[in-house]
Amino acid sequence: LDERAAACSDVSLGWLQDRVREQRGENIPELIDTVRIFGNNNPLRLEIGCGKGQFIQECAERNPDINFIALEMTLNVLVTAMERTHAAGTKNLRYITGMAEYLEKVIPPESVETIYLNFSTPFPKKTYAKHRLTHPRFLEIYSHILKNGGEIRQKTDDKSFFEYSLNTLSDFGFRLSDISFDLHNSGVTGNIITEYEQRFSDMGMPIYYVRAVKVSGQ
Amino acid sequence: LDERAAACSDVSLGWLQDRVREQRGENIPELIDTVRIFGNNNPLRLEIGCGKGQFIQECAERNPDINFIALEMTLNVLVTAMERTHAAGTKNLRYITGMAEYLEKVIPPESVETIYLNFSTPFPKKTYAKHRLTHPRFLEIYSHILKNGGEIRQKTDDKSFFEYSLNTLSDFGFRLSDISFDLHNSGVTGNIITEYEQRFSDMGMPIYYVRAVKVSGQ
Repeated sequence: LDERAAACSDVSLGWLQDRVREQRGENIPELIDTVRIFGNNNPLRLEIGCGKGQFIQECAERNPDINFIALEMTLNVLVTAMERTHAAGTKNLRYITGMAEYLEKVIPPESVETIYLNFSTPFPKKTYAKHRLTHPRFLEIYSHILKNGGEIRQKTDDKSFFEYSLNTLSDFGFRLSDISFDLHNSGVTGNIITEYEQRFSDMGMPIYYVRAVKVSGQ
Repeated sequence: LDERAAACSDVSLGWLQDRVREQRGENIPELIDTVRIFGNNNPLRLEIGCGKGQFIQECAERNPDINFIALEMTLNVLVTAMERTHAAGTKNLRYITGMAEYLEKVIPPESVETIYLNFSTPFPKKTYAKHRLTHPRFLEIYSHILKNGGEIRQKTDDKSFFEYSLNTLSDFGFRLSDISFDLHNSGVTGNIITEYEQRFSDMGMPIYYVRAVKVSGQ
């Protein structure tokens, strides 16, 4: 696995926690320098939990003038994504492995235009609520790295997780928009379908969607 | 019907459009004087579309230190509500007949603490969207009469109408809160069940709920 990952080093930003550890040792923050990495100052979008990366690869190909960073905790899943991007020679997409908790240590503040949360694990048990990617402790991080006017775009097939997310997002001060209880039969256009989404949709299950915009003063 | 209504004149504020017409004739705004009507300066809550009034009667009885005004377009339904309130001798509840379009002509600006929308007609056809009580033309009126920090509380059994309402409310600048896709199985307490609500709930249908708070600067 490490070998396969090493072969894709051109599309990898490494292990998130390593970067944080380096910071601690040297006592200086080492934020990701997107201008150096991408060679331009284009807008930055971030997917948290990209899985095998089908969604973000298609995003990157459709939008060559936007830069994308995709985070995934599980390396053996992420390697598949990196291999695809490596083979395609995509220049505007990079991957990082690790836990979302550390994102604000490496992503510059107010640098992100859009954060994608696609079919994040719902953690239905209340005692695991703090692991949900729309728990306030994560919203704090997203708010820190999002530009004013930037937004979170969440898709899920889990009704309870969606209900939970609408509340945490709104309570945190995000302005909700394009709320849909059935994305594929809504007016929202340009949707890029993920692997999970296709599977759930084929089973006749509705996909829930929301955009949550960071408003100034939040 | 008029006779039955006349017998309840002690709990009635009359016909909304009549009040507006008077204003036009005399060219002076005749806003409802809640201090004169209720004999105190207690907080004011408003139900739009109260039907036979079971909900608002129970609200009034449970909260003697809050004043309630209930609007209903259909007089033959409202008369039943008025008769119950008249018979109970409830002092903190008054009824008005008419169309919600005219509310801001008679309700003082920034005077209302809470607006209840219970099982309003969903008008599923897109061409009738402007009749939905959460259409922006109505939100404009609610925003005008609500205090800062005041709120709309909506309940409905109609999923599409709920989705529509979340979007119009959020887009208008209301801060959504306590969003529930299944009110009777949620953490929200103190819910007073309406006639419709009981019927829908008995059929196993979930009740949707949201509080939409007017934030300053909205």
